[in-house]
Amino acid sequence: MTVVSLELRHPGGVTQVVVGADALETAAFEVDDFAAGRSLFRLSTPTLRRLHSERLETLGTAAKRVVDLEAPDGEEAKAIEQASRLWQEMLGSGGKRDSRLLAIGGGALTDLGGFVAGTFLRGIEVALVPTTLLGMVDAALGGKTAIDLPQAKNSVGVFHQPRLIVVDTRFLESLPVGERRSGAVEAIKKATLLDRRLFEQLEAGLDGLLAGDPLASAPLVAGAAAAKCRVVEADPSEKGLRKVLNFGHTLGHAIEGVLGFRELRHGEAIAYGMLFVLRLAERRGLDRECARRLRDLLARLELPPLPLGAAAVDELIAFMARDKKATESGLTWVLPLGFESYVFESQIGLAEIRSELAAFLVDPC
Amino acid sequence: MTVVSLELRHPGGVTQVVVGADALETAAFEVDDFAAGRSLFRLSTPTLRRLHSERLETLGTAAKRVVDLEAPDGEEAKAIEQASRLWQEMLGSGGKRDSRLLAIGGGALTDLGGFVAGTFLRGIEVALVPTTLLGMVDAALGGKTAIDLPQAKNSVGVFHQPRLIVVDTRFLESLPVGERRSGAVEAIKKATLLDRRLFEQLEAGLDGLLAGDPLASAPLVAGAAAAKCRVVEADPSEKGLRKVLNFGHTLGHAIEGVLGFRELRHGEAIAYGMLFVLRLAERRGLDRECARRLRDLLARLELPPLPLGAAAVDELIAFMARDKKATESGLTWVLPLGFESYVFESQIGLAEIRSELAAFLVDPC
Repeated sequence: MTVVSLELRHPGGVTQVVVGADALETAAFEVDDFAAGRSLFRLSTPTLRRLHSERLETLGTAAKRVVDLEAPDGEEAKAIEQASRLWQEMLGSGGKRDSRLLAIGGGALTDLGGFVAGTFLRGIEVALVPTTLLGMVDAALGGKTAIDLPQAKNSVGVFHQPRLIVVDTRFLESLPVGERRSGAVEAIKKATLLDRRLFEQLEAGLDGLLAGDPLASAPLVAGAAAAKCRVVEADPSEKGLRKVLNFGHTLGHAIEGVLGFRELRHGEAIAYGMLFVLRLAERRGLDRECARRLRDLLARLELPPLPLGAAAVDELIAFMARDKKATESGLTWVLPLGFESYVFESQIGLAEIRSELAAFLVDPC
Repeated sequence: MTVVSLELRHPGGVTQVVVGADALETAAFEVDDFAAGRSLFRLSTPTLRRLHSERLETLGTAAKRVVDLEAPDGEEAKAIEQASRLWQEMLGSGGKRDSRLLAIGGGALTDLGGFVAGTFLRGIEVALVPTTLLGMVDAALGGKTAIDLPQAKNSVGVFHQPRLIVVDTRFLESLPVGERRSGAVEAIKKATLLDRRLFEQLEAGLDGLLAGDPLASAPLVAGAAAAKCRVVEADPSEKGLRKVLNFGHTLGHAIEGVLGFRELRHGEAIAYGMLFVLRLAERRGLDRECARRLRDLLARLELPPLPLGAAAVDELIAFMARDKKATESGLTWVLPLGFESYVFESQIGLAEIRSELAAFLVDPC
């Protein structure tokens, strides 16, 4: 395998997704076609520019002109002040409705870039080049964009489907191992619920993925991306099925929130969220082999310890109640029943959550 | 006629539009249905609360709870700081994905409310109660939302269709006459291009509309709203036909910009924009009777004088070039050819615009 080309069909058209160990070269024509004859805003971060200036400079050379934009590395990018500054820079440098934005970076950067593109002059077209594993298998796919408010992450955003996503697994080589582990959790999550064959591929190939080997990672990344594309196609604006992707996120988000988004990465917190859900699911008939193999696979990630004790129960519960995915009627949990099988459960009482959580915090794995 | 109920079909569903001199009472069931069992954010301005507290208090009483939000009167509402504050208030008071927002106010307030609703948690449902004539016949209809940047109005926004729009023409009574004149221009614009019968109704009924008579205004407002709904249905995200509504806006926006949004109201500036376009259109075969009757109708508005002389030509042209409706390839003008007949013209040279504009500024009417 060299390159896989996927199509994600959505109400506004088609997103082309190109995945491979040399996708930047293979998709050069598509990027040129996206930018040709337009003003292209090329958004990235200082670190990416330093590490990958040669790759970045070749992107979008068919544009009429390229205007480079920058945002901070990491979650800092997702502040309203950053969006506001970028809108003003784009307007000040002559951005029009038919200008284009190309965002190259991790999940935070593509979230910001998608939001800025989705709202500038009521929406200009965007292409994404995710550079983290989490971005490649999750954040960049599906049109969800967001910025943060001081009280909660991702509380402001729009659905804005990119026209093109180029996933080049060579970017994985320069990532810290924790970043690769964080992304691997999202791949494992999708495989469990949506693609048993991918789960088996992950069991066989996890070490290559964690090592950031571009060639070994490419088919796993393509498989996880394809699983996400199928879910997004079925439910582009997260009204139903797409909520399956929240497996592990209910508690995972709360863990991140209570920790102030420090100590654990997103995927690491989600892995703990999944481990907690396994307990709820096992009481409700989860297949034992599935549970065992999922626990085994997560164990191979060598997660950093969960730095929260039983005293955090109340704080975690309060956080979950505020979660943006909560509705007026309460929390919905995604419970796996086996491979490619799950239920949405909104009738789990607070008492059960509280006692299960207290036990979990003492012995999470 | 008491109340007209219109439906605006769009890709995401249907917007119900209820128009009449007692629409708030007639549509009480629809507002209740919108809010029932939810948290309802009820957004308005200090002036509206002072003038119409009784009308406002009755809205949304079927909600589980009502949280009142406020934004400044007029264009000040459309600042990013206002949006940011509202998002945080909504989050802080427990707003969820299935919460609702009801925005009651003029075009600026409904633009802000639509934007905040369209981006809060990636979009919650919104209903609008426009209280100015401009809002009733234009701004509130069609899902365009926006805030301003310091350099240009409406430069950030999303398309977010409301679920319900309640147009109660009694709000016209308390408007300054200039506000009614401003809105009448948008009704005249739509009638010229889209509905000759409405144009005749406006010739017969303009005085009642300018006087803010709720009963006399209702059929005219309903006709203009219906014309807008038909255009939005055909082109919900302004990719083609909907640009017809830019008639008079190319120069009109530039006039507003050069004046710093002072001295003339939006519709008054657009009226001058239409008068300018008539000159371009007459050279390209505009029907003479249509031109005469449109000039006569605009003359009855007794527009305030255009406070710009021939020296403003360059500044106006620079402003038009920056207009967000410009594309990389230049300006497109909407030229009427007669009643219900128009062309899009993007090949008018700068020299013609410059000389025509110099003459126009000396003698605009």
